[in-house]
Parts: sequence; C-alpha cells; structure tokens
Amino acid sequence: MTDAPGGGRRGRGRPATAERVEGRPGTRDRILTSARAEFAARGYDKASIRAIARGAEVDPALVHHYFGSKEQVFEAALETAFAPVIGAPDQFAAEGAAHVGEQMTRFVLGVWENPATREPVLAVVRSAMNNETAARIFRQMITRHLLARLAREVRLPDADVRVQLAVAQLVGTAMLRYVIKVEPLASADPEELVARLAPVVQHHLTGDAPPGDG
Amino acid sequence: MTDAPGGGRRGRGRPATAERVEGRPGTRDRILTSARAEFAARGYDKASIRAIARGAEVDPALVHHYFGSKEQVFEAALETAFAPVIGAPDQFAAEGAAHVGEQMTRFVLGVWENPATREPVLAVVRSAMNNETAARIFRQMITRHLLARLAREVRLPDADVRVQLAVAQLVGTAMLRYVIKVEPLASADPEELVARLAPVVQHHLTGDAPPGDG
Repeated sequence: MTDAPGGGRRGRGRPATAERVEGRPGTRDRILTSARAEFAARGYDKASIRAIARGAEVDPALVHHYFGSKEQVFEAALETAFAPVIGAPDQFAAEGAAHVGEQMTRFVLGVWENPATREPVLAVVRSAMNNETAARIFRQMITRHLLARLAREVRLPDADVRVQLAVAQLVGTAMLRYVIKVEPLASADPEELVARLAPVVQHHLTGDAPPGDG
Repeated sequence: MTDAPGGGRRGRGRPATAERVEGRPGTRDRILTSARAEFAARGYDKASIRAIARGAEVDPALVHHYFGSKEQVFEAALETAFAPVIGAPDQFAAEGAAHVGEQMTRFVLGVWENPATREPVLAVVRSAMNNETAARIFRQMITRHLLARLAREVRLPDADVRVQLAVAQLVGTAMLRYVIKVEPLASADPEELVARLAPVVQHHLTGDAPPGDG
C-alpha cells in the first residue's frame, strides 16, 4: 500500500511509531519540501497526498495527521514558500512610507534573483494560475500576510488598490524577466531596474490620486 | 486508429479526400480552435496532435499537413489567440507618442475584460509559464509583433526596456485582477484603473529616464 519505511498500516493504529516519527524535528519540513516539489511538478489538480508521502518517505496517514486535506497541505507549502516574503512588510515599516517604494522593489527583485527563493514562489504562482482552489488559497494568503499589511503602512483611504497596483508592477516585471525572459529586460542590471521601478512603485503607494478619486 | 469522419488512413494516401477537406474554409480554423482548447486544458507538455485532430474531427495527418509539428501548431494557435492584440501598436501610432500610455492601458484592459479575448490569451500565458518551449515561442511572438513595434513608436535609445516595464505593469495588473482576483482590484471600475495606470504606463514610455541612465 505505501512506500513508508517499515511500511504498512495507518499511523492511528501504531501510536508508538507515529509518536516516534512525529518527534523527529525534520519530518514536517520533509513533507513540506516533498509537497512543494509535487505541486511544482504536477500542479495542484494532479498532485496527490500519496506521492507527497512517498517523496518524504513517510506514511500518507502522517501527511493527513500533520496537515489534513490536500488543500491544507497546499496552504502550508505555500506559507513555507512565502516565509521569506511574509515578514517583509514589517521591515519596510521601520523606514517610513516615503521609502517603501524602493524597499519593496529591492525586496521583490531579491526574491526573484535568488533561485532558492524564486523556485518555490514560481511553483505556487503556477499552481494558482491553473486551478481555482489554489488561486483562492494563494489570494487569501497574499491578502492577509502581504497586501493588507502593506496597505496599513500607506495610511490613505484607497491604500488597498494602491498597494495592489504597486505589487502588479513588480509581479509583471518578474513574469517578463524571469519566466518569459524577454530581452533586454531579462538581462538588465538589477540596479537599473530599481532606479526605473522604485519611483513608479512609490507613486502608486503615496503619489497623487487620479482626479475625481478617493 | 483515428476519430476522423470517414476514418482511416493518412491524408497523403487519399488525395481526393484531403483536397476536399482542405478546401473547406472552416477546417484550419476548427483545428486551431481545437488546439487552443487542448493546450488550455492539458498544457503544452501533455497536449497531443491526436487529441487536437479528434477535437476538430479531422485526421491527425491533416493537422500535420496544415501546421507541421506540435510546436508549430502551438505557434499558430498563439498567433490566433493574439490576433486582436497584434494589430494594436499600429493603431496607437496614429495618435502620437504622448497618448500611447492611455491607449495601451485601455487596450489591454479591454482584451482582459472580454472573456472571448481573455480566455485564449490566458490559455497561452498558462502554457508559457509551465513549459520552456511554449515560453520561447510566446517570447518570440510578443517580441516581434508587440514589444518591438511599440518600441519603434517610443523613439528613445532605451525604448525596449521602457516598453517592457510598461507592459509589465499591465500584465501584472491583469494577473492580480483577472486570474488571482485580489480585492478591491478585481472589482475596481475599469475607468478608475485607466486613470491610475495610464500615467504610469506613459511615464515608462516617455518620462524622464532615471539618473545616470541612457
């Protein structure tokens, strides 16, 4: 039935084993690493708990025990992939709203320049683009942990849409530069991009609103 | 072997039938419609000429006859999906560079607001995000038909990167609004978005370059 070492029955029937395995600090991380690889390789639709368990060398029951449903495994994998991103808004706050544009720009380019942070983020974005459930989980996560927290720094009545258009500039740049790889954008010096993008991002966040608005 | 009506052997062995089918004005379009549906549903990797032929109710040999390889079918499907987009830069040119920002913004939002143009474009973008070959074909197509032609209107030494960052703003907005559907962006009035985005797009195209640059 399973490829778990020592194989066999469900964790619930084997409390001693389940406790021992659960006690290992690396197990949860290993499941999440396997989950990210599985979601990246097969997409949300086709990914399975069984394959995630196999990749982590654990019993599928242990995946359920830690995370519950496939949806919840995806949510946890997504939060791990975005862990470096999630803390960022609090760092930006320290230097005041006038500098958030440049900080956000440097931060997003930094995440995408580094394959170790780019690949997990890209895997999640791919899943979210291909599946409604994955899109919903992704939307809830970035709204709660990223967009809403950035909006609090902006302190304007239309802060939410401002933050989202600023993020749109950076997300679109990442798509064209790192995924589609159009030239010369794909080879442009990161400092040139910061110089071009930071004023635009800052304008979205704190610049004049369009006439007749907010 | 096939689901083609009248079934059976390859077109090359049946010149009378092949000619008759080829003569029907709708056949090529039907293959392309089927190809778009197949690439959208299964992605570039898993899409097959056989399934495209089945969807169009033709012999697979006819798909090869019209288009050649899977790569070439994808290229043709992509050009059809982008047909409404490809002619746009010439329209923008008529009103002069000072208005291109607003025209581009209205145009891109228009393509994404309408499901009939949005779905084919989204299908192609999904394929390009998931497969290197699809990404290359997509890159070549948008560079040749869209980015390079827009850059000619801008008439500045750094026109290419300017156009790409302007397009990045619009692509990122489309991702967040129509695919991930973050609020309030997803429900924002299109005119509000034009008012917010057009000045930014125009700035990328013709605004001051950052200090020390080009």
